Amino acid sequence: MITVYGFSPSGNCHKVRLLLEQLGRDYRWVEVNSAIGETRQPGFLAKNPNGRVPFIELDDGRVLTESNAILHWLAEGTPFLPIDPWQKAKALSWMFFEQYSHEPYIAVARFISGWTPIDSPRRADLPRLRERGHEALAVMERHLSSHSWFTGDFYGIADIALFAYTCVAGHGGIGLERYPAILDWLARVSEVPGFVSLPQPDAAAQALIDQST
Amino acid sequence: MITVYGFSPSGNCHKVRLLLEQLGRDYRWVEVNSAIGETRQPGFLAKNPNGRVPFIELDDGRVLTESNAILHWLAEGTPFLPIDPWQKAKALSWMFFEQYSHEPYIAVARFISGWTPIDSPRRADLPRLRERGHEALAVMERHLSSHSWFTGDFYGIADIALFAYTCVAGHGGIGLERYPAILDWLARVSEVPGFVSLPQPDAAAQALIDQST
Repeated sequence: MITVYGFSPSGNCHKVRLLLEQLGRDYRWVEVNSAIGETRQPGFLAKNPNGRVPFIELDDGRVLTESNAILHWLAEGTPFLPIDPWQKAKALSWMFFEQYSHEPYIAVARFISGWTPIDSPRRADLPRLRERGHEALAVMERHLSSHSWFTGDFYGIADIALFAYTCVAGHGGIGLERYPAILDWLARVSEVPGFVSLPQPDAAAQALIDQST
Repeated sequence: MITVYGFSPSGNCHKVRLLLEQLGRDYRWVEVNSAIGETRQPGFLAKNPNGRVPFIELDDGRVLTESNAILHWLAEGTPFLPIDPWQKAKALSWMFFEQYSHEPYIAVARFISGWTPIDSPRRADLPRLRERGHEALAVMERHLSSHSWFTGDFYGIADIALFAYTCVAGHGGIGLERYPAILDWLARVSEVPGFVSLPQPDAAAQALIDQST
């Protein structure tokens, strides 16, 4: 049995849930609220010294961190990861793009908008985060103008990685109206068997989001 | 023949050179100075719409971006990537850690210190970048207190990925004195056959670095 330590509203955590559901794997979910510092507690840091969710723990105590490394491990030998070395490398390339050029802007704009106080000094970063988020979306839109998926010829883990925060970019004030190919791809992903949605923000987060955009 | 588009002082680019040298692979290096905007020119963006180095191009025109995805592709089937799925996943986990929790602080502090004007407003970010850089180094130090390498039981691509900017953290004002296990690991890496050093900063960059720290 795999135990997932995750914060349900987090796209990084939802990636792991989505793939586990689509693989039909049994798992146990331990909720950890990273928005109130639960990932900085000594008990948590003993398992993941980097102080982040998600991570997974196996029955023998082994731990694996980093959402996209977890996806890759879970997907090996399944249709969610191409066998062809070049296609696999391209999928990994998109997953590194997601963590370096996409998540730090789109996910962080969302987090600041919904999970920090309305007078947080971090809100001064929002215009720059939104600008860089749109740059990442433009790169995705260009790819999708001639490809259906990010994981080679089929849906797979690079799509899961990029879907997680793209589908909620609007929470951070990053609208998708100008990206028709992304909107079509989001619709295709949500029709894949076993798809589960990221939960809606709770009322407090939604109120902050409404005041931020 | 593989063509590498890279900026020689960049650790991300040097990763690719180091592995190609250690694999004994033939390659051609095309220098692209990202510090003066050469990655934002139309000809460059036509090959990599994300506007970054490094990327590699094959003779048939196929392109692969993202330094760590390139490392993974080059290393498959070689001793630089473990065969064991769990060890491979752990190596990938460290490579995602490098791009998310290490490079954005340690490499960016170095870039600002050596490759932006002495009156750049970006220099206001240095204290925060240095603090976060030390957090990443503390995670590495803890791992190295009970492991010799980041790529399973042997030297490999996760070591190359983390070595690239750790070895020059001092350029950004992030000293390694308090990390004895990291210093030992840096020494071990530099003794691996085929090792090549990152080039020294040119005189202009070195002068800026000297004024920054």
